[in-house]
Amino acid sequence: MNRREFHRHLFSALVTTAAAPRAVLSAQPLRVNGARLNGWLEALSAFGKNELGGVTRPAYGAADVAARSYVLELMRAAGLDTTIDPVGNLVGRVPGQEPRLSAIGTGSHIDSVPEGGRYDGTVGALAAIEVARTLDDAEQRLRHPFEVIIFQNEENGKVGSKALRGEDPARYMDFVTNSGLTVRDGIRRIGGDPDRVQEAVRQAGSMAAFLELHIEQGAVLEAARVDIGVVEGIVGIRRWNVEVHGFANHAGTTPMDRRQDALLAAARLVDAVNQIVRQRPGRQVGTVGSLRAEPGAANVIAGRAQLTIELRDLSMQVIDALFEAIEARARVIGQETGTRFEFRSVYRTEPATCSGVIGAVIDSQARAQGLTTLSLPSGAGHDAQEMALLGPIGMIFVPSRGGISHSAHEYTEPAQIEAGANVLLHTLLHIDASLDA
Amino acid sequence: MNRREFHRHLFSALVTTAAAPRAVLSAQPLRVNGARLNGWLEALSAFGKNELGGVTRPAYGAADVAARSYVLELMRAAGLDTTIDPVGNLVGRVPGQEPRLSAIGTGSHIDSVPEGGRYDGTVGALAAIEVARTLDDAEQRLRHPFEVIIFQNEENGKVGSKALRGEDPARYMDFVTNSGLTVRDGIRRIGGDPDRVQEAVRQAGSMAAFLELHIEQGAVLEAARVDIGVVEGIVGIRRWNVEVHGFANHAGTTPMDRRQDALLAAARLVDAVNQIVRQRPGRQVGTVGSLRAEPGAANVIAGRAQLTIELRDLSMQVIDALFEAIEARARVIGQETGTRFEFRSVYRTEPATCSGVIGAVIDSQARAQGLTTLSLPSGAGHDAQEMALLGPIGMIFVPSRGGISHSAHEYTEPAQIEAGANVLLHTLLHIDASLDA
Repeated sequence: MNRREFHRHLFSALVTTAAAPRAVLSAQPLRVNGARLNGWLEALSAFGKNELGGVTRPAYGAADVAARSYVLELMRAAGLDTTIDPVGNLVGRVPGQEPRLSAIGTGSHIDSVPEGGRYDGTVGALAAIEVARTLDDAEQRLRHPFEVIIFQNEENGKVGSKALRGEDPARYMDFVTNSGLTVRDGIRRIGGDPDRVQEAVRQAGSMAAFLELHIEQGAVLEAARVDIGVVEGIVGIRRWNVEVHGFANHAGTTPMDRRQDALLAAARLVDAVNQIVRQRPGRQVGTVGSLRAEPGAANVIAGRAQLTIELRDLSMQVIDALFEAIEARARVIGQETGTRFEFRSVYRTEPATCSGVIGAVIDSQARAQGLTTLSLPSGAGHDAQEMALLGPIGMIFVPSRGGISHSAHEYTEPAQIEAGANVLLHTLLHIDASLDA
Repeated sequence: MNRREFHRHLFSALVTTAAAPRAVLSAQPLRVNGARLNGWLEALSAFGKNELGGVTRPAYGAADVAARSYVLELMRAAGLDTTIDPVGNLVGRVPGQEPRLSAIGTGSHIDSVPEGGRYDGTVGALAAIEVARTLDDAEQRLRHPFEVIIFQNEENGKVGSKALRGEDPARYMDFVTNSGLTVRDGIRRIGGDPDRVQEAVRQAGSMAAFLELHIEQGAVLEAARVDIGVVEGIVGIRRWNVEVHGFANHAGTTPMDRRQDALLAAARLVDAVNQIVRQRPGRQVGTVGSLRAEPGAANVIAGRAQLTIELRDLSMQVIDALFEAIEARARVIGQETGTRFEFRSVYRTEPATCSGVIGAVIDSQARAQGLTTLSLPSGAGHDAQEMALLGPIGMIFVPSRGGISHSAHEYTEPAQIEAGANVLLHTLLHIDASLDA
């Protein structure tokens, strides 16, 4: 049974319909405290604040360590029973009314890229705590055990969530992160134990559901003037390094029809990647972000060129088909230009499909609150995609102004964040009421 | 009177026809000593010989200084009255039978690019000395004063020939050359005097003619299986630095239709330069040799790109028309991609037209020796183009194997070099006999 079949199996008989839940919890007027949530966001942005107005808070750095202490306090104040798991994730638990049920989790991360923004990760992390706090304030216990997870180091390898789903520690332990520390030393610094990370691993299928609220990091919702994005899944990614072999020669003495210009061939491939990706219907994206020519002088025809190709889509089959078309075009360009292309696959991450049932719940709960919705894929990676092995996942997006992310200019309005947190709360309540796993 | 008119004026009444000279010197069976000439070439290649089998002999370096001493000895042994002019050019003179006539000169350079070849410059420099030696051995004096000029530092700025035609010393004196020395210190090292370079300047129109034999540095002659290239002129060159302004963004979350991809725009311009240059009849060339994207990561859409454009042709009008078409195309690409192009002109050198009359003499003298000929432009710069201000110029090309130059793989057969030197000799004799200036 693959992951998708597993989720379908798990959900098949359990959820009656998303629009008509068996329980009536979602009919309650329960609301998060938006002012409190946005106040926490403001307070959190002081940790690692940079002169650009954003934050530089790489995992394991001093600002991250201090921010984690602050967040741990918020979790305790929300009535969560907190622990730092051996990987260094902050985990807060509330027992369920029906202990035989698996836990429902929600959370995100609070680390940032260097010169990052204030909203990426933090919105979902603090909204998860705000949801716990709202339930605690209302003295409302879920049927399922409830977990808030603040994953360590999302931005530099999704270490916390990958470790949780059983990634081989050898693949990340000695990686030198943006903080300057290896993951191993970083785990020690944030209170984990690198020799015991296997104890943090969760069993496949051990969670009833996992939800993540996140800023969109694109401009799709903003452009469509929509409040809430219902994420269909997190795209798979493949990357290639491409080398173009031509022949370096004198730019003055070599006639146009006797050239083997590696840069010309590379340029044609850049255009071809764009054309091939765009001409197929769908929301796949393809990017050449890097291109270098050698020797790289104005008066020398390039003998070599190097470029990267990245393709992303919810379907790995689509990515592979696009790549086949790109390779075929490269052969034609090679013949036209007297050059040769060499493709080396350097990165591959599988797509993660969000649960359609949870998606339908997100959609109906948002609409019930008077919010508009749009289904879309997530072009960026998120912790939730790693959690997909442990149970069905759902992701809620709120708009990003101008689609800007990983920048001090990252911005989501307080009201949009509050709306997202309320959708998270009621999606959680609905799932808790309707799900018997 | 511009340069071209001046040459036309000078030549108009003087040369009857190239094919039917007034004097009969060219009917003599005078021939250079090919074995001697190729032996000198072999000996000269020892100065700065590198492990690749070529030479690294930048001007002013130890190998250049030693090679100049060797060549000066060859000049003296050829009966030339040698001096080092204040710029550092090696100048060898033989008085003419008719002292009222202006000098006819020939020569080239012996410095090389780093990791260069054995033939670039040296073939014409040593052939000039061999021609002098052949005349001296035959006790044959020309009507015109005869000069052999070995120009200093061709490869790193054509310093010797530019200085001779009156280039402002401020424009080259403090340039740091491939030897590590400034031109100023280099001139001192090779026996010139940087404070007296103005004394080396020759008056415009002061030479009756200047001839240069050189390897083609392209593959046109080889491909056409032709012995001798009659050079129509030395191309003009313009170079631009181009900056493309887009918007850096997340390669996963930014849909294809919302991108402002500076690298995509740059790539389309690379292809456009190639198309525009090729679709016009003629032998113009256009090259993008360098392209960089920023930030240059596989998962970030490039916000900026920088590239170079170089155009070469015998006509500056053609170059300017090509550039206009490229600029127009850039505007369209900018609109298509949401980017903006900024062109900065960074280099411009005017074309130099070879004398059609001398070209006809080269052609007829080559054919008279049973050699095949082809007219072609020189895509590379040469000392002769600087001499064009001092008098009409002619250039003779011999084939380069594979069109390879500025490389240890540079190669021209000894027989081809001998043939070129004999054409140089008889072109000189014909001009000397027919020209009364």
